[in-house]
Amino acid sequence: MYKNFINTEDWSKSEIEDLIDVANQLKESPFHQNFKNKSFALLFLNPSMRTRTSFELGIQQLGGTAIVLQPGKDAWGIEFEEGIVMNGDAEEHIKEVAAVLSTYVDAIAIRAFPKFQNWDYDKQDNVIKSFVKYSNVPIINMETIVHPCQELALMMTMKKHLGKVENKKFLLTWTYHPKPLNTAVANSALSIASKFGMDVTLLCPNKDYLLDKKYLKIAEENCQQQGSTLTISHDIEESYNNADFVYAKSWGALPYYGNPEEEFKIRRQYAHFMVDEHKMSLTNQAKFSHCLPLRRNIKATDAVMDSDYCVAIEEAENRLHVQKAMMLNLFGEKI
Amino acid sequence: MYKNFINTEDWSKSEIEDLIDVANQLKESPFHQNFKNKSFALLFLNPSMRTRTSFELGIQQLGGTAIVLQPGKDAWGIEFEEGIVMNGDAEEHIKEVAAVLSTYVDAIAIRAFPKFQNWDYDKQDNVIKSFVKYSNVPIINMETIVHPCQELALMMTMKKHLGKVENKKFLLTWTYHPKPLNTAVANSALSIASKFGMDVTLLCPNKDYLLDKKYLKIAEENCQQQGSTLTISHDIEESYNNADFVYAKSWGALPYYGNPEEEFKIRRQYAHFMVDEHKMSLTNQAKFSHCLPLRRNIKATDAVMDSDYCVAIEEAENRLHVQKAMMLNLFGEKI
Amino acid sequence: MYKNFINTEDWSKSEIEDLIDVANQLKESPFHQNFKNKSFALLFLNPSMRTRTSFELGIQQLGGTAIVLQPGKDAWGIEFEEGIVMNGDAEEHIKEVAAVLSTYVDAIAIRAFPKFQNWDYDKQDNVIKSFVKYSNVPIINMETIVHPCQELALMMTMKKHLGKVENKKFLLTWTYHPKPLNTAVANSALSIASKFGMDVTLLCPNKDYLLDKKYLKIAEENCQQQGSTLTISHDIEESYNNADFVYAKSWGALPYYGNPEEEFKIRRQYAHFMVDEHKMSLTNQAKFSHCLPLRRNIKATDAVMDSDYCVAIEEAENRLHVQKAMMLNLFGEKI
Repeated sequence: MYKNFINTEDWSKSEIEDLIDVANQLKESPFHQNFKNKSFALLFLNPSMRTRTSFELGIQQLGGTAIVLQPGKDAWGIEFEEGIVMNGDAEEHIKEVAAVLSTYVDAIAIRAFPKFQNWDYDKQDNVIKSFVKYSNVPIINMETIVHPCQELALMMTMKKHLGKVENKKFLLTWTYHPKPLNTAVANSALSIASKFGMDVTLLCPNKDYLLDKKYLKIAEENCQQQGSTLTISHDIEESYNNADFVYAKSWGALPYYGNPEEEFKIRRQYAHFMVDEHKMSLTNQAKFSHCLPLRRNIKATDAVMDSDYCVAIEEAENRLHVQKAMMLNLFGEKI
Repeated sequence: MYKNFINTEDWSKSEIEDLIDVANQLKESPFHQNFKNKSFALLFLNPSMRTRTSFELGIQQLGGTAIVLQPGKDAWGIEFEEGIVMNGDAEEHIKEVAAVLSTYVDAIAIRAFPKFQNWDYDKQDNVIKSFVKYSNVPIINMETIVHPCQELALMMTMKKHLGKVENKKFLLTWTYHPKPLNTAVANSALSIASKFGMDVTLLCPNKDYLLDKKYLKIAEENCQQQGSTLTISHDIEESYNNADFVYAKSWGALPYYGNPEEEFKIRRQYAHFMVDEHKMSLTNQAKFSHCLPLRRNIKATDAVMDSDYCVAIEEAENRLHVQKAMMLNLFGEKI
Repeated sequence: MYKNFINTEDWSKSEIEDLIDVANQLKESPFHQNFKNKSFALLFLNPSMRTRTSFELGIQQLGGTAIVLQPGKDAWGIEFEEGIVMNGDAEEHIKEVAAVLSTYVDAIAIRAFPKFQNWDYDKQDNVIKSFVKYSNVPIINMETIVHPCQELALMMTMKKHLGKVENKKFLLTWTYHPKPLNTAVANSALSIASKFGMDVTLLCPNKDYLLDKKYLKIAEENCQQQGSTLTISHDIEESYNNADFVYAKSWGALPYYGNPEEEFKIRRQYAHFMVDEHKMSLTNQAKFSHCLPLRRNIKATDAVMDSDYCVAIEEAENRLHVQKAMMLNLFGEKI
């Protein structure tokens, strides 16, 4: 049986540490031929810059072939419901897509954002689970309702700058954004920081902006197991105080999921959650990062983004290295 | 002078048998370097998943380079009429596109569906013929009004499962679909089954759904030459009875070409042509296949698609192998 | 410090001659491994056929990897203004895009046409200058308000057919086109012909169709330095008379920039600037060329495009060779 890379719940702390070790080696020595005669389909149901470039490049740097497909744009639209009479827009069912691609390529990577209509549906993460179910090759998550590749890159970056991350204070702060964004990176940041025993603070405007209880529970259990703390706060100064690492992300309030106009009336009151130099001055000389793309002077000020303590570019670079390490691992390959 | 791969009329039965033999070898041994320093432009005027993936991958598995272009989307729109004053949308004429690409790449593959406005015009297959006329490199048909790559994959699949295909009963059944689709795969299925001496039955709702007389004539002449039979039927039970291979495809009625609303009034009466277990039970333990994409529970039921006798995934996989064999042949390359 | 390829002003005549020498060698011997383990991001903010194909192919022919991105389509939209509150469409700032891509790839090539709203803004060429400013790798211009790759291909083609180009009469003629096009290729044609000491004639309907004074001044200074002449003319017969090379291009009148409807009232009077056999008969057996794409029977007649003296296809082919030579030069690579 082969491995998938769907979320970090399925991977132990020590397995992830191994991935990061290999990623650090790949950063020094990027070119290998492990994937000679191996091919990967990269399916983008949503736009991408970093993910597309880092996967396509990483695969080629390991000697492999990447095929980029955009179902619904340059490829046929896909139906994910089972047993349905396919009388709508989709020309083809995931069962066939997954089975056919499995005969062509050695692994399939998917980016599939939620539909933003019904969280109870979207939280099932049906698209990638369908690929897992119907494919015969490893499936890689390039962001759905979690973003595990980003988690690896974030942890690689934190370990570099914090050394031992255990019991360091990790602040995940909500920020304003003109649109109600996906919670994926926020869910993922909570998961990985807690898995590594950091003292995690989740700062958000009010309880409407809490993440789904599934991810709060993962973080809680991780902290319990690691002997660290999970703090939920709506107090900006308290949250920033003595933080060792500040991670920002915007997301839409789940109780208003599918009602962007109602949600906007609330969200627009909280533009002051933008990360700025004053807030950062309250920290323990924390580094700041973000998964990118980031709207400047909305999520973080120019001063923060251009500062020495901003490591967002390094985290983005690390995407390349951790993804290569993860793909090598899926195929039991060593460098 | 170089060869093109435009339709199977230009290729003899024994040439196609040779292609399928090489395809079977490639299935066992996929990686070769025959196309080192060879490049292929893949032009998609319409969406694609299998064709895009299998061509891009197949070329790379033979050491070559594939460049994917989508004229009208990421590349300039193309004019195909001669002598025209180019005052419309197209920024560039096929004469220049074909000539320039011929200086860059070693072969050009094109997917160009009909326009669905005027069959007398569309049936001339002007786009690919223009590429043949104005290019100086081999041209490959990735589906226009015929789909010869699919023919090769279908025949490879049938030979695998039927052994000797001569005088086996091949049923091509029309099915319902919400849109009036291209006749390409149906034309092609008739052509290849008859070329190989199968007893061919074309099942469709009524005479409006007959294929263009050009393709009926090809099938008739092939059957005459091979000593097999061509039967046209509107009787479902009779057609399925004792069939050795069932191939399904939907297409729009040619007399209503360009009038999709009028055609729909007729087409919607024939949803019961969907392939189901009862119909399949009438056959001689036939295998079932379809070119994909396929709308489940519209063209065929879930039970048929998920059955052991469905070989559509295998046919899709064989696309990769037959296309590699065909491209090798165009360049006189052997593995 | 590394080199960029932004415009030919930064490159001396002898440096360009060296590039063309290498391009001629690459035409004979296309395949090398200089870019093994080197990767290039190709960013297309506008459509492309020749540029996309020739860059992607050229990089691969030198052993490198090309990643094609289309920001705003398959990648996130980019903001280019500094200090802005990013409350609009763009999800990401050039500072991050350039910095992140610089960590992934070894060079970034950009196609970014003007916005056609405000020439005073567009003439600053802000997009590519921002990439130069914020990237840490060589930046290559794939057409902005100049098209230096086309210049190299044009000069390679002229040197082939004219031998010594100094003091040969180069005619750049404006032509009609249904849309007010970019002046980039016209600016570039003036620059390169004058840099090589050709006697340059710019033919356009009236003073509204003069190119921006920056490019007229470059041409004037080049001619002065080379001892050649720059002539501006609105007289068709006089301009074609004794020309040694005719280059056609359409562009919109700069005084009406951003007002396409007003400009069209003027432009539509000048359809007779189309290059035809009569005009070509006035020349000194000149070759004719155009950068492509070209609308036939709008910019030039079928007879001209299909004539022996039309070298537009050869110029397009030369794009491949000169770009490879230029990229090798940026990395100090020799073949």
